[in-house]
Amino acid sequence: MPVKLTAPQASTLLPVRGVKLGYAEANIRKAQRKDLLVITLAEGSAVSGVFTQNQFCAAPVTLCKSHLAAKQGIRALMVNTGCANAGTGEQGMQAAQQSCAALADLLDLNAEQILPFSTGVILEPLPVDKLISGLPTAIANLNENNWLAAAEAIMTTDIVAKATSRRLLIDGQAVTITGMSKGSGMIHPNMATMLGYIATDAVVSQAALDAIIHHAVNKSFNCITVDGDTSTNDSLIMLASQQAGHAQISETSPHFLALRDAMTEVAIELAQAIVRDGEGATKFMTVQIDGGKDEAECRKVAYAIAHSPLIKTAFFASDPNLGRILAAIGYAGVDQLDVNQLKLYLGDVLVAEKGGRASAYREEQGAAIMQEAEILVRVDLARGAASCTIWTCDFSYDYVKINADYRS
Amino acid sequence: MPVKLTAPQASTLLPVRGVKLGYAEANIRKAQRKDLLVITLAEGSAVSGVFTQNQFCAAPVTLCKSHLAAKQGIRALMVNTGCANAGTGEQGMQAAQQSCAALADLLDLNAEQILPFSTGVILEPLPVDKLISGLPTAIANLNENNWLAAAEAIMTTDIVAKATSRRLLIDGQAVTITGMSKGSGMIHPNMATMLGYIATDAVVSQAALDAIIHHAVNKSFNCITVDGDTSTNDSLIMLASQQAGHAQISETSPHFLALRDAMTEVAIELAQAIVRDGEGATKFMTVQIDGGKDEAECRKVAYAIAHSPLIKTAFFASDPNLGRILAAIGYAGVDQLDVNQLKLYLGDVLVAEKGGRASAYREEQGAAIMQEAEILVRVDLARGAASCTIWTCDFSYDYVKINADYRS
Repeated sequence: MPVKLTAPQASTLLPVRGVKLGYAEANIRKAQRKDLLVITLAEGSAVSGVFTQNQFCAAPVTLCKSHLAAKQGIRALMVNTGCANAGTGEQGMQAAQQSCAALADLLDLNAEQILPFSTGVILEPLPVDKLISGLPTAIANLNENNWLAAAEAIMTTDIVAKATSRRLLIDGQAVTITGMSKGSGMIHPNMATMLGYIATDAVVSQAALDAIIHHAVNKSFNCITVDGDTSTNDSLIMLASQQAGHAQISETSPHFLALRDAMTEVAIELAQAIVRDGEGATKFMTVQIDGGKDEAECRKVAYAIAHSPLIKTAFFASDPNLGRILAAIGYAGVDQLDVNQLKLYLGDVLVAEKGGRASAYREEQGAAIMQEAEILVRVDLARGAASCTIWTCDFSYDYVKINADYRS
Repeated sequence: MPVKLTAPQASTLLPVRGVKLGYAEANIRKAQRKDLLVITLAEGSAVSGVFTQNQFCAAPVTLCKSHLAAKQGIRALMVNTGCANAGTGEQGMQAAQQSCAALADLLDLNAEQILPFSTGVILEPLPVDKLISGLPTAIANLNENNWLAAAEAIMTTDIVAKATSRRLLIDGQAVTITGMSKGSGMIHPNMATMLGYIATDAVVSQAALDAIIHHAVNKSFNCITVDGDTSTNDSLIMLASQQAGHAQISETSPHFLALRDAMTEVAIELAQAIVRDGEGATKFMTVQIDGGKDEAECRKVAYAIAHSPLIKTAFFASDPNLGRILAAIGYAGVDQLDVNQLKLYLGDVLVAEKGGRASAYREEQGAAIMQEAEILVRVDLARGAASCTIWTCDFSYDYVKINADYRS
């Protein structure tokens, strides 16, 4: 069950002026399931994207990059679940192009104004005819108030729909930010098997939006892991529909930081939601590494801990078998680590120092913290001033069940 | 259940002249369980060791290295299960030293002639009094024919005792090799949570034995992974008791390769046995990467596949969800990989080429192979002549169960 995560009420998701969402049941993999989403954007919208670093990236990812580079003015996004259209070779690229052409036709755009996204099973052909035949239904119900239905339409093994809104004032004008994400397994930084869409009606330059997305992704989606698998299809998109009526925000505007931080806050909430709904998750863990020489070595230690199946199963069992964390720190690959200097904390409790168990530590303390649904693991490497924080979940029977059964 | 692995018959394990083994139930963690092993070596034996690269290495590992470096002539080994004596700080080092001193006293040796080994839970103090009080019993039953009982005495979560023998002729003299290993979880190359001891009565120089152990470990224990966790206590020891009566083997001797290859064969069998008995394992997978530019990139791809929980759970489910393998190849970090050139085979069946599913591939073929207990995954990167082979197992409900319950 998701860890302290419930689906949002539709009424809490604020419409973003200039951004409409429409969905359909296209039967791409399963019947009677929303599996196709179309988002349209007002003319003049700025769009930024970051994509998976997997070299086996999906055809739609390649096409998204090429369409963004064409600078024709993105006017619509299209997302299907049920098939990742990855590992599909030349045929997969044709299918993605065909889908874009079909949607462009229906919306009177050119194909380079469309961004396509797919998520689901890899190595299977995209049933492009089914997708295309679902488009008219999706277009027919385009609406600014469809965020919850849209968040549901992009789910795969997700249990809970993930979306959230923020409102801020810029120059006296109300600015809305609403975002949604999907993802549950094959989750790893750089980036996660996930799709994320964050829209705002703020008036913001392309350069400023690019700066915001890079800042936000490094503080959010690049700080989560479920299973260490980097997907073929990860995409995070930020949209700015330019409708809010204030003066345009550039990177040097006084309001830039306010918008950047609000967009980042939404990104963090959506990224954490993916971990809370991680496949089989029963615990949400924050792994904070302090005292490193640089952020890179902090991340090495954080991910060694967050990826260890032994640690993740111990958290699942609420078993304070914390020597496994020391072992992970030891193999994380930090150069010339002095294990006698570092300290390991669970919550506020000092567990290990001077290379061994802290003298005041009692197993009952560890056991009590391990019972919590949200747990902080903190390591002070005591060799510098750098730090990092990442989020992960535990590893349960249900993780195996979900992934053993996913296609069936 | 272990994959095609059963415990050896005691009668198939050949005694090695000059090597005696004795065991005891020392109640270190659990009662009525062999948990202490002493091995004595004839005077003049050559001993080589390789140890974990985990920086949080256990006190006995540190002490082993220092005793080997002291070159006093190793005459005895001592192994306890139930406690790893790792993450135990200064107190742990004192406990290891005390144990060595006690055994040295009983055997009329000096402490630097003893190699100590521990395996079990990390971060808990070694009950050194219990260990020491078990030593007289172990010494009392020292015998050349105790290999099976010794292999049982070093087991932790292992289901099956792991030991094997080989015999070869060198210069007309019969030479025996007998080895044993333990390990099941926290298994990763460089090295695995495992202990391995391979003894021979061959007459072999220290330099030649060092060369043999490095060759053998790279072909065996450094080619296995269960869960990607590198332990704090891994140790592989090779012993040569010099009793076989042939001329001494140096690195340039005509018989060097025969001995090296026989020792390596034993190491591979013992390493594979650890994977076959991997925690919760139901499948044994060979991952072979060909056509790489160098071995390093082949290993990156092999371990990306072997460590992916998504791939391992798909194998558990016998589900040919083989796109997950393409995804792992894509994120393995191979520089400028051309995904359109590589080929993926499952057994003899070509699954993917030209960036997508092979046109002749049928899901039934993949499904049939996934039912097997031993499966070959082969990737041809088609960009060079390097290759590598590693062994791993699947990821099952029982892996979670075993590791959630290990301490209880």
